[in-house]
Amino acid sequence: MTATSWTRKHIISLEDFSNDEYDTVLTTALSFQDVLNSRTKKVPALQGQVVANMFFEPSTRTRSSFELAAKRLSADILNFSPSTSSLTKGETILDTAKTYLAMGANIMVIRHSQSGVPLNIAVEMDRLNTGVSIFNAGDGLHQHPSQGLLDLFTLCSILDGKNPRISLLKDKKIAIVGDILHSRVARSNLNSLLTAGVKLHLAAPPTLLPKLFLDTINPKYQDNLFLHWHIQPALEDADFVMTLRLQKERMSDYLLPSLREYHQQFGITRKRLQLCQPNVKVLHPGPVNRGVEISSDLMDDPQFSLIQDQVTSGVAVRMALLYLIGNLK
Amino acid sequence: MTATSWTRKHIISLEDFSNDEYDTVLTTALSFQDVLNSRTKKVPALQGQVVANMFFEPSTRTRSSFELAAKRLSADILNFSPSTSSLTKGETILDTAKTYLAMGANIMVIRHSQSGVPLNIAVEMDRLNTGVSIFNAGDGLHQHPSQGLLDLFTLCSILDGKNPRISLLKDKKIAIVGDILHSRVARSNLNSLLTAGVKLHLAAPPTLLPKLFLDTINPKYQDNLFLHWHIQPALEDADFVMTLRLQKERMSDYLLPSLREYHQQFGITRKRLQLCQPNVKVLHPGPVNRGVEISSDLMDDPQFSLIQDQVTSGVAVRMALLYLIGNLK
Amino acid sequence: MTATSWTRKHIISLEDFSNDEYDTVLTTALSFQDVLNSRTKKVPALQGQVVANMFFEPSTRTRSSFELAAKRLSADILNFSPSTSSLTKGETILDTAKTYLAMGANIMVIRHSQSGVPLNIAVEMDRLNTGVSIFNAGDGLHQHPSQGLLDLFTLCSILDGKNPRISLLKDKKIAIVGDILHSRVARSNLNSLLTAGVKLHLAAPPTLLPKLFLDTINPKYQDNLFLHWHIQPALEDADFVMTLRLQKERMSDYLLPSLREYHQQFGITRKRLQLCQPNVKVLHPGPVNRGVEISSDLMDDPQFSLIQDQVTSGVAVRMALLYLIGNLK
Repeated sequence: MTATSWTRKHIISLEDFSNDEYDTVLTTALSFQDVLNSRTKKVPALQGQVVANMFFEPSTRTRSSFELAAKRLSADILNFSPSTSSLTKGETILDTAKTYLAMGANIMVIRHSQSGVPLNIAVEMDRLNTGVSIFNAGDGLHQHPSQGLLDLFTLCSILDGKNPRISLLKDKKIAIVGDILHSRVARSNLNSLLTAGVKLHLAAPPTLLPKLFLDTINPKYQDNLFLHWHIQPALEDADFVMTLRLQKERMSDYLLPSLREYHQQFGITRKRLQLCQPNVKVLHPGPVNRGVEISSDLMDDPQFSLIQDQVTSGVAVRMALLYLIGNLK
Repeated sequence: MTATSWTRKHIISLEDFSNDEYDTVLTTALSFQDVLNSRTKKVPALQGQVVANMFFEPSTRTRSSFELAAKRLSADILNFSPSTSSLTKGETILDTAKTYLAMGANIMVIRHSQSGVPLNIAVEMDRLNTGVSIFNAGDGLHQHPSQGLLDLFTLCSILDGKNPRISLLKDKKIAIVGDILHSRVARSNLNSLLTAGVKLHLAAPPTLLPKLFLDTINPKYQDNLFLHWHIQPALEDADFVMTLRLQKERMSDYLLPSLREYHQQFGITRKRLQLCQPNVKVLHPGPVNRGVEISSDLMDDPQFSLIQDQVTSGVAVRMALLYLIGNLK
Repeated sequence: MTATSWTRKHIISLEDFSNDEYDTVLTTALSFQDVLNSRTKKVPALQGQVVANMFFEPSTRTRSSFELAAKRLSADILNFSPSTSSLTKGETILDTAKTYLAMGANIMVIRHSQSGVPLNIAVEMDRLNTGVSIFNAGDGLHQHPSQGLLDLFTLCSILDGKNPRISLLKDKKIAIVGDILHSRVARSNLNSLLTAGVKLHLAAPPTLLPKLFLDTINPKYQDNLFLHWHIQPALEDADFVMTLRLQKERMSDYLLPSLREYHQQFGITRKRLQLCQPNVKVLHPGPVNRGVEISSDLMDDPQFSLIQDQVTSGVAVRMALLYLIGNLK
């Protein structure tokens, strides 16, 4: 599969992404990374197209990444700010989407605190035969596909920067540590990494990783998935460690002990990394609670931390995805 | 009159728009609609010019429409956000406008909750001989001229999409239903539609359409204007029905019964539309309170609803107006 | 020194600006003023570069000026809005800066209510060898270098519009009136004007201009610096009067009498200007509290007021500075 045979119109979830699709995203992102490293930094790939950034749940970081990706593709961008919007005026989210459609939006990047909103809008846009693409930028506890794909690109680029492909990850051991139950990032990563054939070890306190979680995973992948309520077995000989952001509000939900206790049990430190492969790398989707999910000095150590690489990959991967869905047919 | 003979510098109100001016806006908007349907979607008509979006009253929808129109004309846009502005620091609105003038703004698009603010600024800008154009994007209960003009364009385009002109509306029956007293949209539409020779029927509860309202209308148009406190006579044989947004805060002012009762008396439904001409169309400036001003299923029925067309027309009409005032002399 | 021999990478403070650097900024700003007066108004000088506007302390006016300057240089702009940012999520300011770095920001324009933040970030960016430039857009009570430079450009342009240079100000008498103790604008202006050889007279109530203030000034300039607790001696024969914005919150700090009393003692009026040179000009960084720092009619009198010129100079000077730091090597 090449970019020209791409057929997916909406980016909603990684649940049904094929190996071919993953590889096309990786290859396309690599070529856009070259654009970003060039002098001009821009391509006219989406000239004339309108990308509407509809962040019902605020996020400067992710919105900026999408905005920059769209600008680098020469798209026109409309930023929707929910605080000053007509949602407070009794309109439904779908009405808002239809308004942007009528204004000429070609791609809507949607973040919402409720799971399923981007999918609902995509279904309706297709029913109305609008030609609009919906890009899920994070919906509730469901999915955050561009984060999953930028993590994938970051991982594969470490293994082969000139030819990142999903097969590189086969049989690698990757630990995901933290609030897996409530993480849309974890959910997207589970899809891509299990498809890649990774040996995936999840580690979290039982409140954030109940046994029932396993029931949500496709049985064909369950042989490669391991749940741990202690961090040590997850880290042993791991090639990569992915830490998740801890929402502090989980504590008021009685799902978490103190942050200090969490750090003692599940925080990633230099000492704990000695359990892993010697060239282990650590990822985190950001923003990091310094000294909670990961010790502060480790976070800033380029020998171990891929956190900055993830942000950089984010622009290239989002350019790739906007380009692929914006140039269908 | 052609675009090259346009002389109006500020768009403040439709009160004194001539038939020629209406037709020039319609023709120019039609040509920009072609641009929007083309592949490139952009013209360099305002290249180098700065459009300052000064929305003292927040509105994502209208601001986005102006922003997109300005981008399609290749203007540079400055978005002013009142919440973080120096207005809280003791500066007058006119001082803010002068600051944007000194920065190089060529067109200021101004929305304000107080009637008269855009006019005041226009008068001062002229007195100082600045050359700046002021575009009223809605001021208090006064006027919303671009909404009136996009409604006009929507109506005329339905009647003759290849040659929209104001004379097409002569002797058509149009009903305007809702909170006419407090609606700047209604006020702008009254100007354009009465000039066009429309038989205009207004329907609302007496609290929202007092008899005194008639005194605000130029006597020469009063033969074509009909006030109704029930909806039925307004709808009978109507060619178009324009519904107005109901501000829920009117209820706390004791001007309205419950929303449910309002819908029963003045809501537009399929059943009520049977009173109208068979090919009647319904407009609403948005955002709609679903099931209040108009029944939810009717709003989504493209056979009757022009609501999406209005939004689409909005971008073309605002491009036309920005182009006309931005290319004077 | 010409623009091509410019070596300063960050604009943090005017404390150590050399005469050569001042003159280079003035000459470069003059050439950009010509660009702004031309038809196209744009140059491709920063094409492909990303300017991140990081205003942790909100300011529509200054942000718009930087945004327009960056647009005129064809840069891509990312606007960071602290209210919706991850700073509320436990990230440090430096982490935020590193995220924008990783996204590809080349210049970060930083405003923060705490003194020293831009310098801290600049030091870290250099330590990491990132090549990023930091532009202080106002930090706490410390410095606001672009305001100081735009004031300098405004002053020198009045004296010789075709060849503004710092030597024009030698031995001119300039009065700075107002809350000098808490003003980052005053601090930047003190640096540039004392370097220029100006006879600088400061006037303020003792609470806002304590004797100790003198200790913060380089002794080699102290012969040219005069402190007054009454306005009259500062104004006598002055060539220029710079007024400072009065923060109303100083009154709750018991540093100020009523605004009315302040105006009576230190407000600039037509009458008081008669003490100065006949062609005296008045400056104010804005936004002005009308009738407090300066009488309302005087503020609007182009014979005396340079307030609008300062705003216009702001865009050209910021273009010059962004250009100089964005084209090093």
